[in-house]
Amino acid sequence: MRIVIALGGNALLRRGQNPDASAQIANVEKACAALAPLAKEHELVITHGNGPQVGVLALQSANDETLSEPYPLDTLGAMTQGMIGYWMLQSLQNNLPGRHVASMVNQTLVMESDPAFGDPTKFVGAVYTKEEADAMAAERGWTMKADGQYFRRVVGSPKPQRVLETRLIRQMLESGSVVVCAGGGGIPVVRNEHGHRVGVEAVIDKDLTAAVMAEHLEADFLMILTDVPEVIENYGTDDARPVTRATPKALRDMDFPAGSMGPKVEAVCRFVELTGDTSAIGRLEDAMEIIAGTAGTIVTPGGDYGGPKDIQVPMPASVGEAKSHT
Amino acid sequence: MRIVIALGGNALLRRGQNPDASAQIANVEKACAALAPLAKEHELVITHGNGPQVGVLALQSANDETLSEPYPLDTLGAMTQGMIGYWMLQSLQNNLPGRHVASMVNQTLVMESDPAFGDPTKFVGAVYTKEEADAMAAERGWTMKADGQYFRRVVGSPKPQRVLETRLIRQMLESGSVVVCAGGGGIPVVRNEHGHRVGVEAVIDKDLTAAVMAEHLEADFLMILTDVPEVIENYGTDDARPVTRATPKALRDMDFPAGSMGPKVEAVCRFVELTGDTSAIGRLEDAMEIIAGTAGTIVTPGGDYGGPKDIQVPMPASVGEAKSHT
Repeated sequence: MRIVIALGGNALLRRGQNPDASAQIANVEKACAALAPLAKEHELVITHGNGPQVGVLALQSANDETLSEPYPLDTLGAMTQGMIGYWMLQSLQNNLPGRHVASMVNQTLVMESDPAFGDPTKFVGAVYTKEEADAMAAERGWTMKADGQYFRRVVGSPKPQRVLETRLIRQMLESGSVVVCAGGGGIPVVRNEHGHRVGVEAVIDKDLTAAVMAEHLEADFLMILTDVPEVIENYGTDDARPVTRATPKALRDMDFPAGSMGPKVEAVCRFVELTGDTSAIGRLEDAMEIIAGTAGTIVTPGGDYGGPKDIQVPMPASVGEAKSHT
Repeated sequence: MRIVIALGGNALLRRGQNPDASAQIANVEKACAALAPLAKEHELVITHGNGPQVGVLALQSANDETLSEPYPLDTLGAMTQGMIGYWMLQSLQNNLPGRHVASMVNQTLVMESDPAFGDPTKFVGAVYTKEEADAMAAERGWTMKADGQYFRRVVGSPKPQRVLETRLIRQMLESGSVVVCAGGGGIPVVRNEHGHRVGVEAVIDKDLTAAVMAEHLEADFLMILTDVPEVIENYGTDDARPVTRATPKALRDMDFPAGSMGPKVEAVCRFVELTGDTSAIGRLEDAMEIIAGTAGTIVTPGGDYGGPKDIQVPMPASVGEAKSHT
């Protein structure tokens, strides 16, 4: 079957971990070793987060006195696609001898009219004092908000509409390659009045991009991998219980902390509602068990899943063609 | 025909120019506007230099006190592939409506036994005092050499053997995409004793990589674009004269300053000697005139060239197949 995987940025740089390249490469190698067995049996598209990595580069760029202004977020995102894309490319190739792996630079279209641009909420880059923050706002037009006792820049997190190179990704996939793409949710671009793509300063949720990409690639399974084994209902209360199977409606009816689980739940629900296919949230190291149905929170239209045998893989186009000629 | 283009890193960040993203993007847009007309008539693979850009990132990384050690050169090269790859992807797409553009992360295989590793000559990264340089050498195993009154790290420039994702590049090309790839000559990797790819700290000459890639992609034309209109024979003497046509042998017999023209001459000569196809060195803004035969230094087996009509484009495979069935 065709599987789209979204891998958390924290799987590649853990909270509190020193951002050395060597530490991140070791994490990437662990992640790719966990994903390689899936690639042996299935078509695989892998996208990854880049929040911590963009944070590191944003500070380096802000501290670079040879620059008139720090590199914009779309450019920093592109740099992390190159960096993480290279590490994953190399590690997947080493884990999958004889298999081709493609690592691509990708843009994700967002709408200029997205309400998120009018209500920026995502903190990015360095911390500033009130005075510095006011100066940044005046000089660069940045929106600054209090983050604890300091101030930081905030940007919008618009809804991903489409990975612009989806057709090339499908082509790679159909010719047998594992594809690493749309890192960080894709580089955010809008179309201007001439139809040209223009980069924008925004943060795209990579789980929502993975869902859109899975839909457009007609994937059979969308897997969101993070550091918790299942979604927890009534988290932090006496009634807390892991959810192993759910319908989109049941999952949407539960309450989750707004932080990171919200977009993951939205991503899996949206994909299942739109496509009728299967989606899951779980741990990176459980990837194989999730497909088998023995780990993770699995979301299907009917709320049941007994393993790959329950997935209806579409008939190859060639079968249909053969029929039409007889 | 199928054209491989190597674009100088200085075309994207001019000597002495401030390395702001906005300045580099403006240069990329100028370059892509010059190359787009070629893409309308031909298959196009574009590779680019990254020397100045890796220099900027190497300094940012060396000054980042949250890191135990600066990011290694292979990772920095990957970051520039993402960054420049994104800028070129977007600009080419905007210049070529309806055309697909692929921007890929690529590794280039070099040999561990390459003599260049034993005799490093390429300066990279920050300048240090003698004491600092000695400390770096002891701590990190770097080779340091005097560069003026300061010291800098030197690394080897091994010979590119193969862009590892050549098959994917060919696939993209044959399905009609313009391909941006192997930026900076490709990320240098060796194969270890298990056959695994491992990144190495080295600098690959992007013109030599372009020649290898052009050979492996069976390109009809290799074009090395820089900031001089032609190769100059007897440069700096009273006998100086521009070379407009040459055989590889004639070009090799001329003397060039060792700096940047040497590898370009080696790249075009090697390609023509190995393939019998056509190659040229010239200015970015003359790209269309070079193909027409009215600008640049054009190198062919016989030293003559009258324009595209002189290029024997191989018969498409389908023609041969059709014949074999009759």
